[in-house]
Amino acid sequence: MNMAEISILLIRPQMGENIGAAARVMHNFGLADLRIVAPRDGWPNAAAEAMSAGAKELIASARLFDSVAEAVADLHQLYATTARPREMEKEAIWLQELPAHLKQNVAGENIKLGVLFGPERSGLENEDLALCDTILSVPVNPAYPSLNLAQAVALVCYELSRVTLGAQAESPSPAAEAASKAALQGFFDQLEVALDAVHFWRVAEKKPVMWMNLRNLFTRARLNEQEIRTLRGMIRRLSER
Amino acid sequence: MNMAEISILLIRPQMGENIGAAARVMHNFGLADLRIVAPRDGWPNAAAEAMSAGAKELIASARLFDSVAEAVADLHQLYATTARPREMEKEAIWLQELPAHLKQNVAGENIKLGVLFGPERSGLENEDLALCDTILSVPVNPAYPSLNLAQAVALVCYELSRVTLGAQAESPSPAAEAASKAALQGFFDQLEVALDAVHFWRVAEKKPVMWMNLRNLFTRARLNEQEIRTLRGMIRRLSER
Repeated sequence: MNMAEISILLIRPQMGENIGAAARVMHNFGLADLRIVAPRDGWPNAAAEAMSAGAKELIASARLFDSVAEAVADLHQLYATTARPREMEKEAIWLQELPAHLKQNVAGENIKLGVLFGPERSGLENEDLALCDTILSVPVNPAYPSLNLAQAVALVCYELSRVTLGAQAESPSPAAEAASKAALQGFFDQLEVALDAVHFWRVAEKKPVMWMNLRNLFTRARLNEQEIRTLRGMIRRLSER
Repeated sequence: MNMAEISILLIRPQMGENIGAAARVMHNFGLADLRIVAPRDGWPNAAAEAMSAGAKELIASARLFDSVAEAVADLHQLYATTARPREMEKEAIWLQELPAHLKQNVAGENIKLGVLFGPERSGLENEDLALCDTILSVPVNPAYPSLNLAQAVALVCYELSRVTLGAQAESPSPAAEAASKAALQGFFDQLEVALDAVHFWRVAEKKPVMWMNLRNLFTRARLNEQEIRTLRGMIRRLSER
């Protein structure tokens, strides 16, 4: 699936700021096809441009439509985002189920996908839902389910990106080059001598457990060679006085 | 894990609008603990209140701090959100790995969790990252990685909600009870005084980096309270001579 070909459709949006913020987060996730149906304040919209930040191109290339039917004409699979349960015989999924749902239902390369978002105040109308295949709901706090429009777009874009990520997504952890065990042992030997010298253990019988705990915590840190040099320097300086 | 007890920390936020939008989406997902460190435009902030919509209570109960260290003092596990790879020896995960990471590392009921977000323009400083346990990155389009602050908060809240959603059955593995950040800071303060006293840094200009690296390696070890007591005793004895 190509993220750039997924369409985000804002149906009768009210605030230009939300259109701009939606474009910005689409660009954050590599989506490029923005469609706008009957925006309240007309088009172009200065507030949308301002809020789009680095996604000015998406605003410039956004397509304007008079009706939902025209806006979705070339698409094949439509998701309607709505928080509210409707009395409607239609498949409904949670947002976190979207990747699995896409894999099952949108297999072909030529399947064009769209996600519809309703106006800020009222959400999608039943007439809009009737055009859609699947209802998509974000699992929000029932006490306060009203998501900001651009936030809803952000969550959908993020969940869509899971599909593309799939196998990829290796941790960005810097593969810490752990020091050799010999280097670690060298530090331990030095530390033990230093602690013996200041009678750190107080009671001799306690040393075995205390010493094991100390070594454990340093082992857990997966020290690299440079860090071991720093720690050795630290113990040396503290002991020299 | 109780969503209401997870802390969201906005570090030096610039735009009141973003603070308000962050509070709103926190409430959407049932989060309630908002902490704000040194907001650019002071506090309270009318734009924050306006954008918070139905989450006015979160704005009213948000706690204000002068420094990151004070804001995190009672927390145990800290995630730092940043899009940029850093040359830093610190664990880093992708946002979609967060639920699994929480299950592995934050098992105890008394582990208090915080997620830090940096200022809009510049993100978190290395000094902020040094206080954190784990770097958390959203898998964004490398060509345009700059996420809006409140959008980043939305994505993290959504991913956190997965833990509560899918957290049935699986028995959490016992994790070490990490010490509070205040206890860790106490050790750092003592160690810094001791190392200053023996002129450990040699060249003054090298201290900031060396000191950050040292704190990072101890943070990485996820020390518990007993281990911090042992280390403090060790530094005290070595310095006493």
